[in-house]
Amino acid sequence: MEVVQVLHMNGGVGETSYAKNSLLQQKVITMTKPITEDAITKLYCSKYPDEIAIADLGCSSGPNTFFLVSELLKVVDSVRQKIGKKSPEYQVFLNDLPGNDFNTIFRSLSDFQNKLRKQLGPGNGPCFFTGVPGSFYGRLFRKNSLHFVHSSYSLHWLSQVPQGLESNKRNIYMASTSPPDVLKAYYVQFQKNFSLFLKCRSEELVDGGRMVLTLIGRRSDDPSSKECCYFWELLAIALSDMLVEGLIEEEKLNSFNIPMYTPSPAEVKYEVVKEGSFNIDRLEVTEVNWNAYQDETDLSDAFKDGGYNVAKCIRAVAEPLLASHFGEGILDEVFRRYREIISDRVSKEKNEFVNVTVSLIKA
Amino acid sequence: MEVVQVLHMNGGVGETSYAKNSLLQQKVITMTKPITEDAITKLYCSKYPDEIAIADLGCSSGPNTFFLVSELLKVVDSVRQKIGKKSPEYQVFLNDLPGNDFNTIFRSLSDFQNKLRKQLGPGNGPCFFTGVPGSFYGRLFRKNSLHFVHSSYSLHWLSQVPQGLESNKRNIYMASTSPPDVLKAYYVQFQKNFSLFLKCRSEELVDGGRMVLTLIGRRSDDPSSKECCYFWELLAIALSDMLVEGLIEEEKLNSFNIPMYTPSPAEVKYEVVKEGSFNIDRLEVTEVNWNAYQDETDLSDAFKDGGYNVAKCIRAVAEPLLASHFGEGILDEVFRRYREIISDRVSKEKNEFVNVTVSLIKA
Repeated sequence: MEVVQVLHMNGGVGETSYAKNSLLQQKVITMTKPITEDAITKLYCSKYPDEIAIADLGCSSGPNTFFLVSELLKVVDSVRQKIGKKSPEYQVFLNDLPGNDFNTIFRSLSDFQNKLRKQLGPGNGPCFFTGVPGSFYGRLFRKNSLHFVHSSYSLHWLSQVPQGLESNKRNIYMASTSPPDVLKAYYVQFQKNFSLFLKCRSEELVDGGRMVLTLIGRRSDDPSSKECCYFWELLAIALSDMLVEGLIEEEKLNSFNIPMYTPSPAEVKYEVVKEGSFNIDRLEVTEVNWNAYQDETDLSDAFKDGGYNVAKCIRAVAEPLLASHFGEGILDEVFRRYREIISDRVSKEKNEFVNVTVSLIKA
Repeated sequence: MEVVQVLHMNGGVGETSYAKNSLLQQKVITMTKPITEDAITKLYCSKYPDEIAIADLGCSSGPNTFFLVSELLKVVDSVRQKIGKKSPEYQVFLNDLPGNDFNTIFRSLSDFQNKLRKQLGPGNGPCFFTGVPGSFYGRLFRKNSLHFVHSSYSLHWLSQVPQGLESNKRNIYMASTSPPDVLKAYYVQFQKNFSLFLKCRSEELVDGGRMVLTLIGRRSDDPSSKECCYFWELLAIALSDMLVEGLIEEEKLNSFNIPMYTPSPAEVKYEVVKEGSFNIDRLEVTEVNWNAYQDETDLSDAFKDGGYNVAKCIRAVAEPLLASHFGEGILDEVFRRYREIISDRVSKEKNEFVNVTVSLIKA
């Protein structure tokens, strides 16, 4: 149960955030921009509200924390200029777990606001920023206080490791060798979490309010399919090798499982319909290459190494989980091996994260 | 102008907060509790709202950050239980400058909420916390989004050192030897800041919303009277001694002034009436001994030393100002001397901070 603590408990190592690889995250936001843009435009044009309250759930702390917000505000400002409306006032809630580095966000806020002011030009309304610490698997905001909710690359994280994974042994996530009860335990935990998320947000959003959610997911109906489990399977190989060499204990590896679920579009749809508070406007699947740097030019050799990049990307999210369960001592060795394994695979095959994006309207 | 940066600019040393001595602050909140309690009770009983949005401006980061909030919530909960009403939902905005340590606040939030839940018992509504970085001499919240604003021991800080203090030479604040134009420059800056503060809050508060503000002030009409200037005069003596000994430069001392104003009740009233958005419900003066520890028993000898305590208390607020202007190197020596000077005075005379508290209703 240590892994639970990493994501959702307070105190010590338990205080973390939905850490994200920044370039990957920026690519995902850019890739899903048509859906987000469509949603915020429809929201604005439905009522031309005097104020828009936006929440970004799992905002993390890094170069992209403000990226999504600035994209949203640019869209609204462009529309309102075209039709000659006065700018709304904006309230932006940046949410993440209490361990997130809000200090860094707040200290860079002034620079961001100055930049945004220049980009939007004269006449744009004030934008008030607040930080909201807490798990989104619970209420975070007052009733009917939000107009737009966004969450990218956070909602695939579960509130806890599912119970009943004892038979998952050397796997660390769902895998082709996982028994059916393991797959079921994961799915049940996802259902609980996702429907609770929908219920909480439906209380917080105004009627007609909108929500755009992007999760790592899968196209296949099989929850243990390679498209969503492969990057954890490769990490499990690195850990198993270390077990064989006596560097980690068998009991430790057997009890380690990643608190994540990568749903199919059908599973997302099923939960939304069952929960009943939202109508689905759009439900789409996109892919982003494991190696988010692949298209970039002028990169150093280290950055050109696909293994380096993917391992770095996974390390950002897996490190606190591994550190909490196995201790910090093993981290460098795990990721050295992981990078080697990944380099080998990346050179032979193309791998992608599958993203499921759903755009919802509060019924 | 460096001092301005310490309080209100972003970047580097400029990022600080309204640092407070925690025991002193707790005493002040406790002392002004009848006024705060009266105001929140009247607010709640005027409309029995389903939700109450409370902002604490200059919340700092320390053991007292949640003290005021828990006092307010206990009052409302006690009243609503007596009359058998369902608890409102609470939204608490904790504001301070972007340099404040919000991370520490957020990481202690869960413990505080658990404690509060037990204190209030069953049936109390959820309380949502957000951090709001920024200067309160500007808009911080959406229009009509607050019900209750509180600020204690922050509003005597000016947004900048007044302009035109060249003739204040070896004084570091208003003093009996300050020329009239210095006193005027300070007053003008206070007027600008305080009326801007009132204007911003009047836009953010709902009609009938309330605000309780406590500032360090004075009873006398004379802005250079001992009751409000003495603790800075003693610091100026320490600095002048160091100038004579060649430890600091004359030009540096001449250009150093504290960006603070300690108004009389009449001056506070005048600004409120002139600005016009608020009616005054109560306007009161209280005193708190320089040595906030004086009444405590079981304290170590260090804590029983009045000089130690007052110097520590002033150091909390003056250190960033001095460090930014003179460099960090002088701090220990300044405060060693300051402590000696204060010990001498405290043993001979009783000194108090005068607090001006005003309780306002949005007209």
